[in-house]
Amino acid sequence: MRMAELSRESGVPVATIKFYLREGLLPAGERTSPNQARYSREHVRRLRLIRALLEVGGLSLAQVTEVLDAVDADDLDQHKIFGVAQATVTQPGLDPDDDSEHAQAARERVHKLLVDHDWRVPPDWPPVNALARVIATIQELEPVLLQQLDARAELIGKVADLDVELLEGRSLEQQVEIVVAGTVLGDALMSAMRRVAQIDRSARKFTRPDDHDM
Amino acid sequence: MRMAELSRESGVPVATIKFYLREGLLPAGERTSPNQARYSREHVRRLRLIRALLEVGGLSLAQVTEVLDAVDADDLDQHKIFGVAQATVTQPGLDPDDDSEHAQAARERVHKLLVDHDWRVPPDWPPVNALARVIATIQELEPVLLQQLDARAELIGKVADLDVELLEGRSLEQQVEIVVAGTVLGDALMSAMRRVAQIDRSARKFTRPDDHDM
Repeated sequence: MRMAELSRESGVPVATIKFYLREGLLPAGERTSPNQARYSREHVRRLRLIRALLEVGGLSLAQVTEVLDAVDADDLDQHKIFGVAQATVTQPGLDPDDDSEHAQAARERVHKLLVDHDWRVPPDWPPVNALARVIATIQELEPVLLQQLDARAELIGKVADLDVELLEGRSLEQQVEIVVAGTVLGDALMSAMRRVAQIDRSARKFTRPDDHDM
Repeated sequence: MRMAELSRESGVPVATIKFYLREGLLPAGERTSPNQARYSREHVRRLRLIRALLEVGGLSLAQVTEVLDAVDADDLDQHKIFGVAQATVTQPGLDPDDDSEHAQAARERVHKLLVDHDWRVPPDWPPVNALARVIATIQELEPVLLQQLDARAELIGKVADLDVELLEGRSLEQQVEIVVAGTVLGDALMSAMRRVAQIDRSARKFTRPDDHDM
């Protein structure tokens, strides 16, 4: 397809596409004459990935370049894909130098969680540390939330099963696009559905007889 | 307890507590002499709620005042608690005037979701509209994510069951505190656990024989 069609298909303005080409974010099209090039479905797909990273992931152009370099690396394989995608959405972790009782208790709770659920992950993987930080904050502000940690982990494990299932039979480039979008949009989807489901459950449980038409 | 102990117990500096008292966010203590007052566990709890709203929820002081007014309202009852808490964490919704094909398709998908899962919620409830917006974005950027929408909704319904279960047998004030903290911190917890579980599932599924010590 020509540039104009690429713009239409992807929803990205021509000037922006030209900018991505100059910056090397988008690979050049196949040149068909000195002034024209032909673009493929791969270009549409790559433009979508760039938009997802910039607009939904809130990444800087420099970070997008980094992710795309990782995506384009010759040695990219499936077991690295979640690592690449997760690096795009880094939650802050617990300060490694923090050896307060508080921080240590959170690290121990995470360790127990990993063991109990047989989640085999490198203990120094950034998301493990990010999880420790969330748990430390909960311990401080509202520790009752941790009473159901195992039940919640069980359900989230099933969400992760769905996440991985979605990648089956797709190209690596497609997988990266899905994982990046699925990380950011998937979180937003879970939060939004949870709010709606809470209202349903709360109404069923707590509504008084004269409130049933809430 | 005296002011100094309230500060120690809550982790909030004395100067900040005095500021909250002046602003009316924290009710006055029981006066025991012209210069001294006594504070209760309720004050510790209220300070925690204020911190959760400000620091974790990212609310302004004006918004915190609004939430606390709702919490203190005489007619607060259980079926309103999620509404109060959800108002503190508003995700943007779909523009009601947006009648593009795109927006309408998202609204229809949400409607079908509510019917299929028997989630009984007022259709004009803000979280329903926020869910429509997330689905509209997914449809645009990575529609394959919607293939598993029902399976995900099933799991999130079980998360909401846990959320509501946690409130049983607690005072209204405690319930509000839990719901507010649980809304914000619960989202962060789900996201963090999901990242960790993804790495586990991905490693099990995709790791090549020579990678098993990743």
